[in-house]
Amino acid sequence: MTTKRTVFFISDRTGITAETLGHSLLTQFDIELEQVTLPFVDDVHRAKKTVEQINQVATETGVSPIVFSTVVNAEVRDHLRQCHATFFDFFDTFIAPLERELGVPSSHAIGQAHGRGDDRLYDVRIDAMNFALNNDDGVSTRHYKDADVVIVGVSRTGKTPVSIYLALQYGIYAANYPLTDEDLMDGRLPSCLGPYRKKLYGLSIQAERLREIRQERRPNSQYASLQQCQMEVARAEGLFRREAIPYANSTTVSIEEIASTMIVEAKLRRRLY
Amino acid sequence: MTTKRTVFFISDRTGITAETLGHSLLTQFDIELEQVTLPFVDDVHRAKKTVEQINQVATETGVSPIVFSTVVNAEVRDHLRQCHATFFDFFDTFIAPLERELGVPSSHAIGQAHGRGDDRLYDVRIDAMNFALNNDDGVSTRHYKDADVVIVGVSRTGKTPVSIYLALQYGIYAANYPLTDEDLMDGRLPSCLGPYRKKLYGLSIQAERLREIRQERRPNSQYASLQQCQMEVARAEGLFRREAIPYANSTTVSIEEIASTMIVEAKLRRRLY
Repeated sequence: MTTKRTVFFISDRTGITAETLGHSLLTQFDIELEQVTLPFVDDVHRAKKTVEQINQVATETGVSPIVFSTVVNAEVRDHLRQCHATFFDFFDTFIAPLERELGVPSSHAIGQAHGRGDDRLYDVRIDAMNFALNNDDGVSTRHYKDADVVIVGVSRTGKTPVSIYLALQYGIYAANYPLTDEDLMDGRLPSCLGPYRKKLYGLSIQAERLREIRQERRPNSQYASLQQCQMEVARAEGLFRREAIPYANSTTVSIEEIASTMIVEAKLRRRLY
Repeated sequence: MTTKRTVFFISDRTGITAETLGHSLLTQFDIELEQVTLPFVDDVHRAKKTVEQINQVATETGVSPIVFSTVVNAEVRDHLRQCHATFFDFFDTFIAPLERELGVPSSHAIGQAHGRGDDRLYDVRIDAMNFALNNDDGVSTRHYKDADVVIVGVSRTGKTPVSIYLALQYGIYAANYPLTDEDLMDGRLPSCLGPYRKKLYGLSIQAERLREIRQERRPNSQYASLQQCQMEVARAEGLFRREAIPYANSTTVSIEEIASTMIVEAKLRRRLY
């Protein structure tokens, strides 16, 4: 008898803002949802099609859908609002008070929050991403002088995803260096990292979780054994502490949370807002 | 005499939702801003520090700052609201109407929109990203059977960033294949792509912009010459049209817009919401 609520995220561009805002509200509720994103709803024709789609769900499920909209164009929004759903309009809610506060009218131009911006910013982003890819997994330390941060940790702690995320979201140049068995046995900072000591940020993880991740990759290997994972984690954390390298634990936090933490703690300078 | 307005994005977690909200509204105004993100404001002590920081800016600039807040905790918010600024409270604005609509109270738990979620979803994301990295730049077509989409295009059209973005944001498995001079001269679909014809999605770009990008990489090379770029683009687009491969032009659009367009047009199935 219980039907899943359907939630629509409607946008005149990518839908990313509508999804981000909607998700952040919906994560406050312990409720199962059917989620539908409808991007590029930027003219009256598409608005009418969208209303039909929403109304069809309302009829079929017998439950009023929820709509999160970031559509800017007034005419398109007027059509959308006629749907049989609870309508949350992010633009309408905040733009009028913001116009009053800033003392200037808004452009009412189609959403550009995830648009291109100028070529310079696009290039910064791509350059940062290429930097992350070219300086992944310790392939070379030659370019570390240009890095904003060098992430260090044992294999499979999440160094690569965090490096790439820092590039894409913030335009930060992140290299990453995997601590090898040899580095760990030696117990001292690898000499190639010495000149970049102030850029180092450690990533660690619980040994049990590391075992799970490595097990997926190389089942029943020495590499994936709990003993090996415990040894590596203990030695890596020991190294971080002795060398006063700040570090985060990736066991239960997201890529986004690690990235934000690094920015705050290591005072990284963002190139993108 | 004109002072830049300062905008604060305040969050109990990463600040990504607060920034997304604020940016999507502020891009509607042609106005210069000083932007400050304050993540992890999750207790009264930090709230007080934050208020001090905002008030100091208000005093120094003589202009009331603007605050976008996604802080969930009521006590922390009550403190924050005492700052001397125009305060946009995302949570407060939408959560009560949403509670009424859903008929259940919200958890008032700290923002989890960019939190970890369960390990399964985290693993999907990391797997998709590893897939993109391992199937970048045509290194191998061996795993194309597992790809959701295979992005094809000449060198420097943006295939890699789009592949990685599809993985991170949507959990989509994207491989990418660079069309070589040989492929372009031949004028037919490279035989290794034949079995995956239905997964192909083309990326093109204006020749002048391609020249700029390549010039940065290999100045004054044949590779970066306008003539070479024009030839490659014309032949690639000819191939896409003859083979009925859908394609997008990356000249003036963002990584996010290309990704959204592909999802809609190629009906890609997302693993992450």
